[in-house]
Amino acid sequence: MSEKAGVVEGWVSNVKTVGKITFIEVIDDLSISPVTVVVKRDSVDAETWSKASSMKIGSAVRVEGVFPDIIVSRKGRELQAKAITVLSEPIELPPIDLTGKTPASFDLYVDFRYLALRLPRFRAVFIARAKLVEFTREFFAKNGFLEVHTPKLVGAGAEGGATLFTVDYFGQKAYLSQSPQLYKQMLMCGVPRVFEITPYFRAEKFSTPRHLNESWGLDVEMGFIEDEEDVMKVLEEFIGASINYLRMEVGDMLKTVGLSLIDPPSSIPRITYSEIIDILNSIGYNIQWGEDLDTQAEKSLGEYLSAKGTPIYFITKYPWDAKPFYIMREGDNLSKSFDLDIKGIEVASGGQREHRYHELVQNLKAKGLSLEEFSFYIKAFMYGMPPHGGFGLGLDRLLMTFLGLSNIREVVLFPRDRFRLIP
Amino acid sequence: MSEKAGVVEGWVSNVKTVGKITFIEVIDDLSISPVTVVVKRDSVDAETWSKASSMKIGSAVRVEGVFPDIIVSRKGRELQAKAITVLSEPIELPPIDLTGKTPASFDLYVDFRYLALRLPRFRAVFIARAKLVEFTREFFAKNGFLEVHTPKLVGAGAEGGATLFTVDYFGQKAYLSQSPQLYKQMLMCGVPRVFEITPYFRAEKFSTPRHLNESWGLDVEMGFIEDEEDVMKVLEEFIGASINYLRMEVGDMLKTVGLSLIDPPSSIPRITYSEIIDILNSIGYNIQWGEDLDTQAEKSLGEYLSAKGTPIYFITKYPWDAKPFYIMREGDNLSKSFDLDIKGIEVASGGQREHRYHELVQNLKAKGLSLEEFSFYIKAFMYGMPPHGGFGLGLDRLLMTFLGLSNIREVVLFPRDRFRLIP
Repeated sequence: MSEKAGVVEGWVSNVKTVGKITFIEVIDDLSISPVTVVVKRDSVDAETWSKASSMKIGSAVRVEGVFPDIIVSRKGRELQAKAITVLSEPIELPPIDLTGKTPASFDLYVDFRYLALRLPRFRAVFIARAKLVEFTREFFAKNGFLEVHTPKLVGAGAEGGATLFTVDYFGQKAYLSQSPQLYKQMLMCGVPRVFEITPYFRAEKFSTPRHLNESWGLDVEMGFIEDEEDVMKVLEEFIGASINYLRMEVGDMLKTVGLSLIDPPSSIPRITYSEIIDILNSIGYNIQWGEDLDTQAEKSLGEYLSAKGTPIYFITKYPWDAKPFYIMREGDNLSKSFDLDIKGIEVASGGQREHRYHELVQNLKAKGLSLEEFSFYIKAFMYGMPPHGGFGLGLDRLLMTFLGLSNIREVVLFPRDRFRLIP
Repeated sequence: MSEKAGVVEGWVSNVKTVGKITFIEVIDDLSISPVTVVVKRDSVDAETWSKASSMKIGSAVRVEGVFPDIIVSRKGRELQAKAITVLSEPIELPPIDLTGKTPASFDLYVDFRYLALRLPRFRAVFIARAKLVEFTREFFAKNGFLEVHTPKLVGAGAEGGATLFTVDYFGQKAYLSQSPQLYKQMLMCGVPRVFEITPYFRAEKFSTPRHLNESWGLDVEMGFIEDEEDVMKVLEEFIGASINYLRMEVGDMLKTVGLSLIDPPSSIPRITYSEIIDILNSIGYNIQWGEDLDTQAEKSLGEYLSAKGTPIYFITKYPWDAKPFYIMREGDNLSKSFDLDIKGIEVASGGQREHRYHELVQNLKAKGLSLEEFSFYIKAFMYGMPPHGGFGLGLDRLLMTFLGLSNIREVVLFPRDRFRLIP
C-alpha cells in the first residue's frame, strides 16, 4: 500500500452526492485544478457524512484523509476523506457562480476579485502575472542592474504637471510620480545600471481598455551606452526570454483555461517613424510627417504588421517634437527614441537621453519647462554624467499583450480608473 | 602571455602622476573597489598622455587597454591604458569629495546621492539593499506565496483617515495607501498565501531617525492558519535566512566599508506584552498594563534584551485596545498579535486577523470606525473567509537594523520627510 495520509485546505467549488458517496471539489494551493474529496458514507462517522452532504459551495474547509492509489474521479487529484472541518461558510449567496458554470459580468469579476480568483481562468492569469514580475527581476539583476526604489511623492513630474495627481504634503504641493524617469537618470551619475519595479500614477481622464490611472511598470536605465540601440538590444532580449519563461512555467496552465501566449520573436524589427507613416499612408491613412499616431492608426499598423508575421516591433526615430525633453536629438528634427509595440499597443518607450548639461538646458527651454522646477535634476548633469539611455515598460500592458487579452483590467487585481476607486 | 584586452568604463575617483606614469582610479560596475588604470607616457600617444595627466576627478571615462599579468597597484584590479575617452567632465567642483578622503555632511550625501553612490560605503549599503529585496521575493515565492500588487490609491485607510495623505481623485477624495492591509486580507478569500513589496505612505509629522513619510515594505498574508504562531514561524525563518543570504552575498563587501551584519538568530523568543511590562518596571520604568511603549521604553528594552544575548525578539499578546480593529481578540483584553523588534526598533507587526464576519463588524464598531467606509472590505468576509494572519514589515528598517545603522535615511536613496520633498 502506498496510500499517504494528507490534508487538503481550500474552498469548495462543487458538491455532488451520488448514493452513498459525496464528491467535494476543493481549490487548494496555487493550482487551478481542484482536488476531489471523496466522502463515503460507510467509511466516515455520521457527523462527517452530514457535513459532507450538506456542504455549501464556497465554504473554506480542511479535510483530513488519505491520497488513494487508485483514483476514481476524472480530475487529477483525489483525497479519501476521514474528517472534515468547515472553517468558514458563506453567510449569503456569493454574487458570482463559484462552480464556474454560469459566467458573471466583467464588473462583477472585478468587484469580487477575491472570489474570481477561485476560478481557474482568473487564477491562471494572476499566477502568470506573478511569474512575469519574478522573471523581470531575475533578468535585470542577473544582467548587472541594481534594483532601486525611487520616491513616489515628488516635487516635479517628468513631463510637466498636467497629468499628475496632486497631494497635500504638509502644506506643500507634491505630485504622485508618473514614472521614475528623473530619478533613474540622476542615478546614472553614480551607478552604471539600475532598474525599478514600481507603481505609476497618471491623472488623465482615460476611457480606453488599455489605460489605467494606476499601474505597475518596469523602469530601466543604463549608462556608458553608444546609442539607443544598446538599450533596444537589452529590451529585445528581455521580451524573448520572458515569453519563453512564461511558456515553460505557466504555458500548460494557460492552455487549460483557453489562453495562449504570443510566440517569442527571433528578433524584433526596428522600423522608423518615417517608414511607419509611409506604411499607414499606403493603407489609406493621410498622416503628415510629424503628427502623432492616434489609437486607430496604431491599431491598423498592428494589424498590418501582424499579418506580415511581425506582431512585435520597435518604432524608432520619432520627431523630437513628439518626445519628452530628456530624449536626445538626432539631427535637427529626429530623436534617439523608440517605442516597443505589440499588435498595435505601446508597451514600452525609451531612448538615449540628453546627458550634456547645456544641451539638456536647451531642451527644457524648448519644451517650455521651468529650469527652477527641474533644478535638482539638472544638477546631476554637472558632475560627469555619462551617455545613458533606458526605457519604461508597462508590466500590466505587457502581460495583456502576451496573453492577447483585450482589457488591461483583466490583469490588474483592483484596477483604478476615474470611475473606480473601490474596491 | 595571458594578458587580455579589456575596456573599463566608470568614474574617476583619483588621479596621481608619478614621473612618467599616471594612475587613474576608476569606479566601474557594481563593485566597491576601483580599477587602477595605469598610463605610461612611453607606451601611449601624446594625446592620451595629455588626457591622463590632466584628468579631472569625477569624470566619466572609457579606457581601452590590457589587463596585465603582474599587477603594480595595491588595489585589486589594474588596466594598462592604450586609449582613453573622456565621456563627460564635471563642469563645476563636485559638492562632495569624490576621493572619499574628506567626509561631507549627512545632508550633502542625501542631496547628492548619485555622487555618494560612487563612494564604497554608500555603494555597499545600496547593493545590500537590492540583495535584501531580491532575497525577500525569492523566499516568499519559493514558499508558495503569490506576489500581488494592490492599489496605492484607495478610498479607505486600514487605520482610519488621520495618518493618510489625501489625493484629489477626479473630484473624489482618495488616500494614499499606508499599507496593503485591507486588500491582502480580502485576497485571503480567494488565494491561500500572498505577498507584496510596495511603497507605504504615512502622513504623520515624524521627527525621528527611524521614520519616513514614504518607505518600502513587505506585506505577507497567509490563510488556513491555526493561530498567529504559524505566521511568526514564517517570519522567524525569513529573518534568519535573509541574514545568512546577505552574509554570503555581501558580507565581505560590508566588512570592507566598516559595516557588519547582525548575527542570525538560532531562534527568536516570544515575549508577551505583560512580561515586557514587568521587565521595564524592573529596570526603573513605571508603566501601567495597557499603556503603549514609548520610544525610550522600546530602546531600553532593546538594550536590556541585547545585553542578555537577544537582540531580536517578538512581543506578543498586546492588549487588544492597543491594536487595530482587524486583529483577532484573545479573551477579553488580549489580542493574537505580535511585533518583531530588533534592538528596540519595531521592524514588523502582525497577528491573526478576525475572519468571522459578525465579530469583525463588532471590532470595527468598537474602534469607532465607519461600517459604510469599510463596506467593500467586510463584504469579503461573507463568502467563506478562512482563518488567516500575516504581517507588515519595513524593509528599510530591516536593513537599517541588520546593519546597525542609526538613521533610516542611510538606506533610502531619496528619503521623504516633512522637510524633504526634493530631490
